[in-house]
Amino acid sequence: MKTSGGSDAMKRRAGESAAERVTDGDVVGLGTGSTAAHAIRRLGDRVDAGLDIRGVPTSFASRELAGEEEIPCLDLPEAVGPKGPGIDVAIDGADQVATGTGEGADAGGEADGDDPVPGGALIKGGGAAHAREKLVDAAADHFLVVADPSKESPRLDRSVPVEVLPAGRTAVAAAVREAGGEPTLRCAERKDGPVVTDNGNLVADCAFGEIADPAALSATLSSTPGVVEHGLFVGFADEVHVGTESGVRVDEL
Amino acid sequence: MKTSGGSDAMKRRAGESAAERVTDGDVVGLGTGSTAAHAIRRLGDRVDAGLDIRGVPTSFASRELAGEEEIPCLDLPEAVGPKGPGIDVAIDGADQVATGTGEGADAGGEADGDDPVPGGALIKGGGAAHAREKLVDAAADHFLVVADPSKESPRLDRSVPVEVLPAGRTAVAAAVREAGGEPTLRCAERKDGPVVTDNGNLVADCAFGEIADPAALSATLSSTPGVVEHGLFVGFADEVHVGTESGVRVDEL
Repeated sequence: MKTSGGSDAMKRRAGESAAERVTDGDVVGLGTGSTAAHAIRRLGDRVDAGLDIRGVPTSFASRELAGEEEIPCLDLPEAVGPKGPGIDVAIDGADQVATGTGEGADAGGEADGDDPVPGGALIKGGGAAHAREKLVDAAADHFLVVADPSKESPRLDRSVPVEVLPAGRTAVAAAVREAGGEPTLRCAERKDGPVVTDNGNLVADCAFGEIADPAALSATLSSTPGVVEHGLFVGFADEVHVGTESGVRVDEL
Repeated sequence: MKTSGGSDAMKRRAGESAAERVTDGDVVGLGTGSTAAHAIRRLGDRVDAGLDIRGVPTSFASRELAGEEEIPCLDLPEAVGPKGPGIDVAIDGADQVATGTGEGADAGGEADGDDPVPGGALIKGGGAAHAREKLVDAAADHFLVVADPSKESPRLDRSVPVEVLPAGRTAVAAAVREAGGEPTLRCAERKDGPVVTDNGNLVADCAFGEIADPAALSATLSSTPGVVEHGLFVGFADEVHVGTESGVRVDEL
């Protein structure tokens, strides 16, 4: 499921650019995936050099990496609890990032002014960590997306990962078809049967073709019984850091 | 958490009235709680007398009772799967049932015409089974609510049970406060610590006072990261069967 279109150098530039935004004393949401991992490694170097931060991992994998990098970590419930410090900044990747219709860096598409695809709308969940990622990214004061150009698109058209209660898998599939999508239960590798999320649920990858109105689809999926979380992140991102051949492009939203 | 305001005789009348709606060949959603249990027992008697149905339990408890009553059962994923028979009718209780503003049987309240509290809007989840219940009740062609008069109210003002991912408990609590509610993590009895749902999650009982617009609050809660399901059921019920001192009142919606 992981897209790996961009080069590792581009991903590294994006991750390191976002990591430079972090300042002393910050509580930092630590995203999941290959590009966010570059940010975590850069933060590890900065901690090594004296930077005082605490991380809030979005997944088992990002917690492991933070541990290797000796970044002190807080649990999410502590960080955002009534006496918690909150989360200053979150850095996370995406499977697809909308450049905003007609406003894309490489905008060849129709510049269709009424089209409601907002720049910075994301599809996430290739790593099935999107429920925890959405909690952390939504709680952060600033959410920085890290990506390479292969993730950018004027429209969102990748499959939307939907985390479902096991008992709800067929009811959600029917609702997704009703909404114009085609769901596929994600099968595991290195274990028989389906992928099971860190929360004990299943993942349906739902192909909707080009998503005309991500906010509306997000609301529909959220209110579908059996849906625990879905991979559309609309209105969450504050900045997008895109690693390119020669450097980094930062879009403020 | 279970309300037990109504007499057992009233609950029995309501449950049995709804059970009479079931016909040969039906697939029947089997609700949770003391009033729905009366419906399941009546269905058991009818199966004993030759009625051919299959049940779809909404919880561990309703599955156990269906087993005692020798009602053959289907799993929810089979029932609503692509080759499944679907669910013809679901019978389930509620913690509170809106009579619709100004239209209540005992309507003393202000008949405020713009008030968007639709009759048949429900609060459920006293038994923490509301995620599974909503799946079954939403999937059913007809959803019959069974209640006693103590559950009826022109406005919804009971706490709304919200099932949350364990890692999201404080983030959801903050979002609930933002939406004007006061969340309380539900503590278990006969085990230390919190109630853990059949899905492995926690329950926050969220007091909003009188809920002015249940549909809007439902959408807000559904789209809050960390919320697995909530106990507002708006637009689901087709009939409400209310057991009274002398009989049963049936409201069609």
